[in-house]
Amino acid sequence: MLKKLTAEFIGTFWLVLGGCGSAVFAAGFPELGIGFLGVAFAFGLTVLTMAYAIGHISGCHLNPAVSIGLWAGGRFPTTELLPYIVAQVAGAIVGAFTVYIIASGQPGFDLAGGLASNGYGAHSPGGYSMQAGFITEVVMTFMFLIVILGATHHLANPGFAGLAIGLSLTLIHLISIPVTNTSVNPARSTGPALIVGDWAMAQLWMFWVAPIIGALIAGVVYRWLSPNEE
Amino acid sequence: MLKKLTAEFIGTFWLVLGGCGSAVFAAGFPELGIGFLGVAFAFGLTVLTMAYAIGHISGCHLNPAVSIGLWAGGRFPTTELLPYIVAQVAGAIVGAFTVYIIASGQPGFDLAGGLASNGYGAHSPGGYSMQAGFITEVVMTFMFLIVILGATHHLANPGFAGLAIGLSLTLIHLISIPVTNTSVNPARSTGPALIVGDWAMAQLWMFWVAPIIGALIAGVVYRWLSPNEE
Amino acid sequence: MLKKLTAEFIGTFWLVLGGCGSAVFAAGFPELGIGFLGVAFAFGLTVLTMAYAIGHISGCHLNPAVSIGLWAGGRFPTTELLPYIVAQVAGAIVGAFTVYIIASGQPGFDLAGGLASNGYGAHSPGGYSMQAGFITEVVMTFMFLIVILGATHHLANPGFAGLAIGLSLTLIHLISIPVTNTSVNPARSTGPALIVGDWAMAQLWMFWVAPIIGALIAGVVYRWLSPNEE
Amino acid sequence: MLKKLTAEFIGTFWLVLGGCGSAVFAAGFPELGIGFLGVAFAFGLTVLTMAYAIGHISGCHLNPAVSIGLWAGGRFPTTELLPYIVAQVAGAIVGAFTVYIIASGQPGFDLAGGLASNGYGAHSPGGYSMQAGFITEVVMTFMFLIVILGATHHLANPGFAGLAIGLSLTLIHLISIPVTNTSVNPARSTGPALIVGDWAMAQLWMFWVAPIIGALIAGVVYRWLSPNEE
Repeated sequence: MLKKLTAEFIGTFWLVLGGCGSAVFAAGFPELGIGFLGVAFAFGLTVLTMAYAIGHISGCHLNPAVSIGLWAGGRFPTTELLPYIVAQVAGAIVGAFTVYIIASGQPGFDLAGGLASNGYGAHSPGGYSMQAGFITEVVMTFMFLIVILGATHHLANPGFAGLAIGLSLTLIHLISIPVTNTSVNPARSTGPALIVGDWAMAQLWMFWVAPIIGALIAGVVYRWLSPNEE
Repeated sequence: MLKKLTAEFIGTFWLVLGGCGSAVFAAGFPELGIGFLGVAFAFGLTVLTMAYAIGHISGCHLNPAVSIGLWAGGRFPTTELLPYIVAQVAGAIVGAFTVYIIASGQPGFDLAGGLASNGYGAHSPGGYSMQAGFITEVVMTFMFLIVILGATHHLANPGFAGLAIGLSLTLIHLISIPVTNTSVNPARSTGPALIVGDWAMAQLWMFWVAPIIGALIAGVVYRWLSPNEE
Repeated sequence: MLKKLTAEFIGTFWLVLGGCGSAVFAAGFPELGIGFLGVAFAFGLTVLTMAYAIGHISGCHLNPAVSIGLWAGGRFPTTELLPYIVAQVAGAIVGAFTVYIIASGQPGFDLAGGLASNGYGAHSPGGYSMQAGFITEVVMTFMFLIVILGATHHLANPGFAGLAIGLSLTLIHLISIPVTNTSVNPARSTGPALIVGDWAMAQLWMFWVAPIIGALIAGVVYRWLSPNEE
Repeated sequence: MLKKLTAEFIGTFWLVLGGCGSAVFAAGFPELGIGFLGVAFAFGLTVLTMAYAIGHISGCHLNPAVSIGLWAGGRFPTTELLPYIVAQVAGAIVGAFTVYIIASGQPGFDLAGGLASNGYGAHSPGGYSMQAGFITEVVMTFMFLIVILGATHHLANPGFAGLAIGLSLTLIHLISIPVTNTSVNPARSTGPALIVGDWAMAQLWMFWVAPIIGALIAGVVYRWLSPNEE
């Protein structure tokens, strides 16, 4: 169990360092910046690479909503739920702190940039409303879990799950960075919010509630949808 | 059968939400937008991710032209053709409506942007003529079906079909977004057209006729081309 | 044999339509264009998608230099060399002509844009000299064949060859579009050159000579390098 | 053994030619340049393509830090360590020299551009401090080795290792090009530094020390983390 939790800790650390780090360091670099497209690939590749690196250790959830969705789908035991979530949030916090340490090594760094925190309304990258953000997070997490539950199903091609799941996170970011900066992952939202504080903490509730709702619905729906699932 | 149709519904919903959504929300975002390249990846990744998530349930067509092309190639039964197409169109409509709901949560949203509808002439992104658009849609759908029929052939490597088919849709968008905004999929065209109405409805016929012609030709050609196919 | 040649014809048609088409239609689209990065993905994805679609029919060479390199490496029979090359060049010509037909459906189209022809000196995108272009084409084709010969070796993981080879063509374009517009494929160069004529025809010799030299060297080197190859 | 070293030589040659070459030739091309995103894909694809081409010959390390990390993880014999590192550095030097030869075929080429050398402080692309650069290189190499050790573990899906490892290098570049131009590979840093001299040589020590520290830690950590590893 300690190895599993260490794996989840390292993996979620990587997700936040890679995803938020690429956003903070590289997205808006003058002339050569990677933009939202590069950030979308970065988030997806953190999951893709970890799926093959630690999938055989912990299952590579890296996300409380994923653990909860798998539990709702009958694929994850109740007893491991809380320890997994604690390990994920801890990894996310250390990841966000590492982004902060590196970022503050650049002259002129300013925490007001938001450290890639998630937000809505005035703190949505494109100024989208709270309602739009809420719907987006529910639907995106729902579809994320449908991909996860489907691609890891025993009738799906083994091996390709890590590819499909990682690239589904890339796709989700391609769609929704402008709306909420894309969470679908309460741990990923918590890391930077703790450092930024202020509005990021005030809006954090939504990035726990909406992804978990989406994940729970997906767990129930896929349980019905899948062939011969018990 | 209900499970199959639900899977097609969810998958086509995802195709339109992901593809058209990324185009509407993220393509032209100031400085950091994902451009046509990001939209091309988004469309392809909707199919790639669904292939591994629901391929073992419904075959993951998500496209009336694909169902018709597989039928013409002797791979899909006549009796399932109409139900599949209905489920696909329904999913596309709900997907387009979801894009609309989220988009209208941004101050200043205007439906005149077109909601990523397909078009030709004055409504082609690059102003391409109807003839150029028609040829493009026929040829692109023809090649899409060649990839689908080939990659799912029993002599091809199992497992890689979802990767090849998804990325072929990315490739098709890299080529042809400037010409018609890329359809190759009558359901994908119908969703936004119903909401935008006007010119989008008036031009919709082409995005049913041309893809179906391309798919039928591919079905016949591949049937001859493939080794030991019956 | 007719099926094999038809597969090579369709595949090389797709390579030129997809690669040169994306360059002509989409690379420089105002604000949203896909740039050299998108063109690099397009070229690579034509090969990746065809590898899974027709690999089991013809081997999916799509390139005279590939057929010659495989022959030099002892993997392709002498008797099939000429028919394959003829089918590839024919497919490339029809592909380039299709690009031309679609492109001329845009008001203001001008053939002076070059239709993505390869060139050096004044016709290199970045103004690189003939010597630089020659070295680049030799080295890039050499490495392309090393990847092809290695990834299709019986000790390599079956199934992944199409992925590795397709993405190696993407990589080659990421490096060398600025130098020669990237050929590494005499058929791909011949298609647009026949339509553009003029300087493109005058410089075409290099895109036959350099890739073939690189491929021949790779065939010999890999034959020595590979374990237990006969 | 000679074949193994030749494979490592060719592979590291390709890594530097592809990664640094794309940066020098294509990253900043006016209007159509590939930016940091394209360079990140180029570096990753050099490793991905070589993994399938020469993985079955030498293991495809292409990087002294990788060889050292695998050694620390108990996966690579002490006796082969030095020969591998020599072959890698030699390949990197020839790769950098090839970039230089091609680049000097463009009128107005100036070595002051730095030939994609790694650096910190005034020579960091984003002006990041030496401390930030050091931490970044240690952490990035640590995670690179975690992916390598995990994806090649006997419990991981065989075949996908090349994909996961190559794309992890893409991810690492998406995060850290702005900080140090991204090394995580002492050989890759040594190639261009030898040609540029001056500051690049003066700062080269860091791109040997930091990656090796990260790799050693990863070897020890993964040895504990992995199930049933001996």
